[in-house]
Amino acid sequence: MPPVIQNPKGTRDFYPDDMAFQQHLFDSWHKSCRLYGFEQYEGPMFEHLELYTQKSGDEIEKQLYTFEDKGGRNIALRPELTPTLARMVAAQGTNLKRPMRWYSISRLFRYERMQKGRLREFIQINMDILGIEDVTADAELIAAAIGMMKSLGFDEFDFKARVSSRTLLEELFLGCGVNADKLKTLYALLDKKNKISPDVFSEELQAVVNDKDICRKIDEFFKCESIDDVEKFVETIGLTATPESTGGLKSLNQLKRLFALIDSYGLSDYLAFDIGIVRGLAYYTGIVFELIDIQGAMRAIAGGGRYDNLVGLYGGPPTPAVGFAAGDVVLGELIKAKSIAPPPPSRSDVFIISLDNSENAHKELIKAACKLRARGVSCEFSLKENQNIGKQLKSANNARARYVLFVGGDEGKAGQMKLKNLADGTEELISADGFEEKIAGAVA
Amino acid sequence: MPPVIQNPKGTRDFYPDDMAFQQHLFDSWHKSCRLYGFEQYEGPMFEHLELYTQKSGDEIEKQLYTFEDKGGRNIALRPELTPTLARMVAAQGTNLKRPMRWYSISRLFRYERMQKGRLREFIQINMDILGIEDVTADAELIAAAIGMMKSLGFDEFDFKARVSSRTLLEELFLGCGVNADKLKTLYALLDKKNKISPDVFSEELQAVVNDKDICRKIDEFFKCESIDDVEKFVETIGLTATPESTGGLKSLNQLKRLFALIDSYGLSDYLAFDIGIVRGLAYYTGIVFELIDIQGAMRAIAGGGRYDNLVGLYGGPPTPAVGFAAGDVVLGELIKAKSIAPPPPSRSDVFIISLDNSENAHKELIKAACKLRARGVSCEFSLKENQNIGKQLKSANNARARYVLFVGGDEGKAGQMKLKNLADGTEELISADGFEEKIAGAVA
Repeated sequence: MPPVIQNPKGTRDFYPDDMAFQQHLFDSWHKSCRLYGFEQYEGPMFEHLELYTQKSGDEIEKQLYTFEDKGGRNIALRPELTPTLARMVAAQGTNLKRPMRWYSISRLFRYERMQKGRLREFIQINMDILGIEDVTADAELIAAAIGMMKSLGFDEFDFKARVSSRTLLEELFLGCGVNADKLKTLYALLDKKNKISPDVFSEELQAVVNDKDICRKIDEFFKCESIDDVEKFVETIGLTATPESTGGLKSLNQLKRLFALIDSYGLSDYLAFDIGIVRGLAYYTGIVFELIDIQGAMRAIAGGGRYDNLVGLYGGPPTPAVGFAAGDVVLGELIKAKSIAPPPPSRSDVFIISLDNSENAHKELIKAACKLRARGVSCEFSLKENQNIGKQLKSANNARARYVLFVGGDEGKAGQMKLKNLADGTEELISADGFEEKIAGAVA
Repeated sequence: MPPVIQNPKGTRDFYPDDMAFQQHLFDSWHKSCRLYGFEQYEGPMFEHLELYTQKSGDEIEKQLYTFEDKGGRNIALRPELTPTLARMVAAQGTNLKRPMRWYSISRLFRYERMQKGRLREFIQINMDILGIEDVTADAELIAAAIGMMKSLGFDEFDFKARVSSRTLLEELFLGCGVNADKLKTLYALLDKKNKISPDVFSEELQAVVNDKDICRKIDEFFKCESIDDVEKFVETIGLTATPESTGGLKSLNQLKRLFALIDSYGLSDYLAFDIGIVRGLAYYTGIVFELIDIQGAMRAIAGGGRYDNLVGLYGGPPTPAVGFAAGDVVLGELIKAKSIAPPPPSRSDVFIISLDNSENAHKELIKAACKLRARGVSCEFSLKENQNIGKQLKSANNARARYVLFVGGDEGKAGQMKLKNLADGTEELISADGFEEKIAGAVA
């Protein structure tokens, strides 16, 4: 016997029960998105490599599955969907009516070190609102993200949405005296703050900033636990407004409006300010957020933010945008941990069993199945002719059928059929004449 | 402005209207599969290269997207799903309860010359029945394939199922005196018969067989247009039974039973014998079939057949199997040609418009939306605060909303809301108290 070939490392095989679990997640995603007026889109599974190397930052580059195709093109399996979205929007110029509310449920690929909650092939829900500059869009999107989690069965004791702002960080870093060319390095450092020790963080911060007074100020503002704290800090360092703003920092006003809007959605219990949220991707420009599992390992369930420049960078018209993505791996683990997935569905409404043992028995099964299927009743029957009734019943159980319909036998001669409900074991005799209508009503 | 990066050649971008078209096809596929008791499965988007090089024949090898991953593994994007299915079944040994009725809707990749109906990235429905040796499974599967087409809106004037048998071809070729080691070459030649001229075909046949008498016999049996013709031909060459069979050729008996079974399904109008059907893939072992577009260019819409050895070849227990696949590209073109796709669906049930121009107007929109969404009513509203009513109405039309709900204004002060049905233009005043219940009823 030859050895069994395995699936590639970091990928998954979805057998029917696994797929039913996935499908529950996908159905819930579709439903949440449609509830908020989002339309589905999709792109290719791979893109020209330059789509990623140009815009998505170093973090993504190291993790790409890349290859040269038979036509000599440099190709990468897509590691995230936002570049595809921005490319598609850019390609249409001003043809697409704005604002757009778009979503996609799509496979993605990242060649990374295997660990709990991380695979090399995974599935994400992406939701994006394009064409709105105002924080009203950030609020609607965060509400949709929270709504998606609630519809799966999670509540405010399971997760929180933690929010910060790249603009705020920029205003504060600059206000503390940091040079603008250090910002990108500082975001990357901040993004890994929770993964390294405070001492290492301080050392690395010192190395980047190279000024004790500035480091002290940064340490101070990293201690801010609320927007109030930030406002007080802003006063202590004498920072009151940025050129484009009046009456305080632009980013603080945005964040305050975001919290007020989320309050109108009735979702204040889910929202918290967290200055440590920065998100790894290079293209974020404003508010950034994560949904975080607060029961377990404080893992990020979803992440997103505002990326007002990306469509323009790909050659499209300036298009403000905000979006988020959530992956199926962490969410799947949380659904299993909380036992909130429904049991796998029935494979068939009706399993049809023949009580006869004749040449015509199989044809009678087929004819009964055709009548039921024509009424929209899913059904199956044994494909082994004249199989004994015990084995047919076993197959009905394997199929998790809701009903068994017995055809033929003495009942058949009397123009009747026996219908058995497998959930409660009850049986009834129904007329063979118009049985399909009766059963269509029963399973509806 | 940088140039817009294109999607890779042979791939597609699915904008929301394109995606709605795809989704109609997928929904129809899901529904057809469930009607016949099939369960969904999925596998990785790429596999170890050897999964294909071992078993699928030369045709597939030339068309693979292959690369070496960062761990030095030889990987191929999947060009078909059957090897993944067989690998998954083999990996489970005897754990999976047989028979299995499995389906998958999956992306596939083939690097091939671009032509009408062919792309490098496409989507297939695959349906397979495993664990049944009898032709009852072939009949159920062909009935399901025809059912899938009928549920999309095609009828017997649009397509036919053409059936032949690898076993029959083998029996006839051997009966004509061909050496067994020539069979594979002859199948490949036969598979391209319709793509080359009769003269070239004759020349190539002569080159393979190298015997005038055998060639003459083969020419004769290729003229058979029905099972009756084949039976007569079998008599003329004095071929009556193969060792494993009694009362005639095993393959002919199988085909005759298949036609009788399809008659029980009431689908005889769709089925025809066609000795020229052979299918390109190397692993087929018995009955093979295609669904063919008979209105247009006689293109294959779907193809499939019996592959009783594949699971065993991958190291699994012997598992007879029969399956078929149909792609989204040809089917999509046929759906468009016959204009049987529904129009794109509404993006939202309700677009909520504010008649007020106050600080609170946007919050009132949010609150109304939350109440509707909590009742399962999909809705949206302008994300531009205090946008004028004309622009809000334009957005409602862009969203193809079914209803517009006007909140605020004089009606708002009187505790009412105006609900406008955009399909027929009718308007009614409803009480603001419990409006969400009223609307949930209207859109249900």
